[in-house]
Amino acid sequence: MPEARTGRRGRGGGGAARRAERSAVSFETAKYIQRNIPNFEVLNEEAIEIIEYNAETILEEVGVNFVDNPAALDRWREAGADITGERVRIPRGLARKLCSTAPSEFTQHARNPEKSVVIGGRNLVLAPVYGPPFVRDVAGGRRYATMDDFNKFVKLAYMSKWLHHSGGTVCEPTDIPVNKRHLDMLMAHMTLSDKPFMGSVTEPSRAQDSVDMCGVLFGEDFVQNNTVMTSLTNINSPMTFDDVMMGSLEVYAQNNQACIISPFIVGGAMAPVSVAGTLTQVLAEVLAGVAYSQIVRPGAPAIFGAFVSSIDMNSGAPTFGTPEASLITYGAGQLARRLGLPYRSAGSFCGSKLPDAQAAYETANSLNMGLTSGVNFMLHSCGWLEGGLVADFEKFVMDADQLGALHGLAKGVSVDEEAQAMDAIREVGPGGHYLGCAHTQANFKTAFWKSDLLDYKPYETWEEEGARDTRSLASARVEKLLGDYQKPALEPSVEEALQAFVAQRKESMPDSFM
Amino acid sequence: MPEARTGRRGRGGGGAARRAERSAVSFETAKYIQRNIPNFEVLNEEAIEIIEYNAETILEEVGVNFVDNPAALDRWREAGADITGERVRIPRGLARKLCSTAPSEFTQHARNPEKSVVIGGRNLVLAPVYGPPFVRDVAGGRRYATMDDFNKFVKLAYMSKWLHHSGGTVCEPTDIPVNKRHLDMLMAHMTLSDKPFMGSVTEPSRAQDSVDMCGVLFGEDFVQNNTVMTSLTNINSPMTFDDVMMGSLEVYAQNNQACIISPFIVGGAMAPVSVAGTLTQVLAEVLAGVAYSQIVRPGAPAIFGAFVSSIDMNSGAPTFGTPEASLITYGAGQLARRLGLPYRSAGSFCGSKLPDAQAAYETANSLNMGLTSGVNFMLHSCGWLEGGLVADFEKFVMDADQLGALHGLAKGVSVDEEAQAMDAIREVGPGGHYLGCAHTQANFKTAFWKSDLLDYKPYETWEEEGARDTRSLASARVEKLLGDYQKPALEPSVEEALQAFVAQRKESMPDSFM
Repeated sequence: MPEARTGRRGRGGGGAARRAERSAVSFETAKYIQRNIPNFEVLNEEAIEIIEYNAETILEEVGVNFVDNPAALDRWREAGADITGERVRIPRGLARKLCSTAPSEFTQHARNPEKSVVIGGRNLVLAPVYGPPFVRDVAGGRRYATMDDFNKFVKLAYMSKWLHHSGGTVCEPTDIPVNKRHLDMLMAHMTLSDKPFMGSVTEPSRAQDSVDMCGVLFGEDFVQNNTVMTSLTNINSPMTFDDVMMGSLEVYAQNNQACIISPFIVGGAMAPVSVAGTLTQVLAEVLAGVAYSQIVRPGAPAIFGAFVSSIDMNSGAPTFGTPEASLITYGAGQLARRLGLPYRSAGSFCGSKLPDAQAAYETANSLNMGLTSGVNFMLHSCGWLEGGLVADFEKFVMDADQLGALHGLAKGVSVDEEAQAMDAIREVGPGGHYLGCAHTQANFKTAFWKSDLLDYKPYETWEEEGARDTRSLASARVEKLLGDYQKPALEPSVEEALQAFVAQRKESMPDSFM
Repeated sequence: MPEARTGRRGRGGGGAARRAERSAVSFETAKYIQRNIPNFEVLNEEAIEIIEYNAETILEEVGVNFVDNPAALDRWREAGADITGERVRIPRGLARKLCSTAPSEFTQHARNPEKSVVIGGRNLVLAPVYGPPFVRDVAGGRRYATMDDFNKFVKLAYMSKWLHHSGGTVCEPTDIPVNKRHLDMLMAHMTLSDKPFMGSVTEPSRAQDSVDMCGVLFGEDFVQNNTVMTSLTNINSPMTFDDVMMGSLEVYAQNNQACIISPFIVGGAMAPVSVAGTLTQVLAEVLAGVAYSQIVRPGAPAIFGAFVSSIDMNSGAPTFGTPEASLITYGAGQLARRLGLPYRSAGSFCGSKLPDAQAAYETANSLNMGLTSGVNFMLHSCGWLEGGLVADFEKFVMDADQLGALHGLAKGVSVDEEAQAMDAIREVGPGGHYLGCAHTQANFKTAFWKSDLLDYKPYETWEEEGARDTRSLASARVEKLLGDYQKPALEPSVEEALQAFVAQRKESMPDSFM
């Protein structure tokens, strides 16, 4: 694996950098999950073939729209599609063939090489919530998100053992102009954390800024030859690819950076109310989107995305953690593996307004399903609240704690001699207990996943300590973590160069809040 | 299927019974889950064979204890085991051979034949929490359970669409003498509900009372020829079978009633700290217990049970919803299917003191795992709190609502023409929406599982209505359900005969609270 210049064995950086490195606290980050358990599969061979056949029928007969993007239409025409207006009809087999140049797994480099992640295969990389305009915590209630909130979330993600990725728009910093906030967000990911992160997709020029800032952080040559960003390209389902998202995708693909091609589905509104119908549309959309990324640059990393919720037919609100969303997520995983693409889905989804039991049921349903459906990149894996409108501080650390349980489950079952524990069973015998036996003493520290948050105290102790619920415990943990936070070491010259880039770009344009 | 005498086409019951039937409100109960999804399996063939081999080694070399039960030792000796003191060593292969007479599935009859359940195969039958000495609700806090609480839980279970079974000791009615409370509990199950239920196991004589009361309710002949009760026989792990539990098992097996043979494991205390070691011990214990039930009466229904929690090595408290418990539950399901036995495990397990986010994460982890591990009978599927010390009213209806999601997930994916929804995708096309299309209109009512409890309202509405959390919503639902409750019809002569039986038994012995 090549070394980015900010890595451990990078090009040095003088006494200040070395002093920074010595004084920096290191927070443990678990390696991305490498599953030793199977995937849960709900589609049989016949069902898969029907859905795959139907998806190609949709692409061929109905087609997809590439809006306000004449260059995309030209590219599609040249690749062999049939173009009418903005409608792109793709002959059966063409999209799948184009997709075949996308890698089945790829490395996304972090500036700390120990935190680089491999997305694809049997791996699962966990990243925090993305996109909420609001934040919530016990002390401040629900309010518009600011850059200060954003920085806090980046710090919390950095300090979470079970998050492998710093994410992207962890919340929308609404106090910063729309056309400039991507610069501050990237600055936060690059300097407050050393985990991998995501680039901006809200304008092609902002995608280019993302690439350029990575050039400063990693070195331009490194960026051209390696993937250092993942970006989230939502499809406007049904079957519409707008110029902003596709313009950003073009920038990322041209620069060999990874794109998540992700239908955004509220079942019953943006897709049929049936599981099979939704899977058909998802597959058609992803085929078209990934194929387009490969037309732009064959071999550019692309991820099969599926963001799925259902609709509450009474209120029209999206619902989360539902069985239908689970079935779609399981099925989409099978379709992604058939295409040989890394898979993005699931997350800490919930519709609840508070980090209460509803939020936790819905989230746990989705997190478990994400692990067993074979997801490779799980955006929104912690902190999501209220249908994605809110990033919640307490829920962020509550969910992040639960991600530890996914690591434990993914380990699967060892049957080596130590795990068989036959000597322990012989030693203890009928009526004995295992607390003191040699096998327990040798293994108890690592045998069980251990929550850093949840309460297991005796009832009386718990009551004496204030009878706190999970949200109260989480509130204390947020405060503790932010108090303990220390910035990871970064060469001062690199940080200065990033600051200079941001200042120059901010000066180059007037503020816009549109 | 034979008809019990209290069934729809039973032996009649005069004008009073017919009037009772007409005036009774009917609450909908879903059919037990018939899975159309696969089981999730974490053990490969090699791992299964190692565990099966080791379990037989334990039975042969170490053996199990049958305590204070000379008749059991005689039975085992005659069956071919090696007896030393109270230790029973079982030659390799014998226990498995004895287990082979137990049915792989059986019907447990309810007095309402529409609510009879088939336990085994691809089915999942859901029953409420069992055993807590305390109850909790928002209004009254945590307190010792009473018969009044018990009756309320039986009513809630009766009214829950997603519970197929009334359970057993839903909470301990501590205001009734220990030696008499089984009579009142059975009376509640038999008269306040028409779902199937469990018998007493706290003394062999109480097991016999349970059989006798079923004789009154169903008719003695019917009981001798059919299974009308499931009972919970816990093994004192490691590998100890006490005389009380085995005495009860003997009564039930002799009367052809079902026994759940269930190791009670807190991993690290009653079993090795490793998953494979625990599975080995669980299998050895179940083999011995089920084999014993088949020695008592070949063909008596027996269920492979596995109650599994981990231990928090700091506090010594049991922990729930953990990944290690999940792996054991998945693995035990595979071992049960290899034995051809119905499988009992999982539940609404949590360690939390309140029905908060911790409780819901832990519960959702366990419920999902229960469904995908192939559990056939899920005791504790709703209402469990605080490590099983508390039956919580709000959590009871919260969990029961989530059981609906399991029903949805178990449906799997249809790919019939309607589900393929190709006409809908063609009709809507790129950029459209599905809300008004013909396919949505035809299917939306049944397409998605719908919560009866959770909040999906717009933020502003939710705030105006008091910004209630899940527990508050659940508290209102408990009150509403108990207000709407109406007793299911029962022949007055049967109810009178049951009352006479209970009165006679209560008079026959002094109160005991020990």
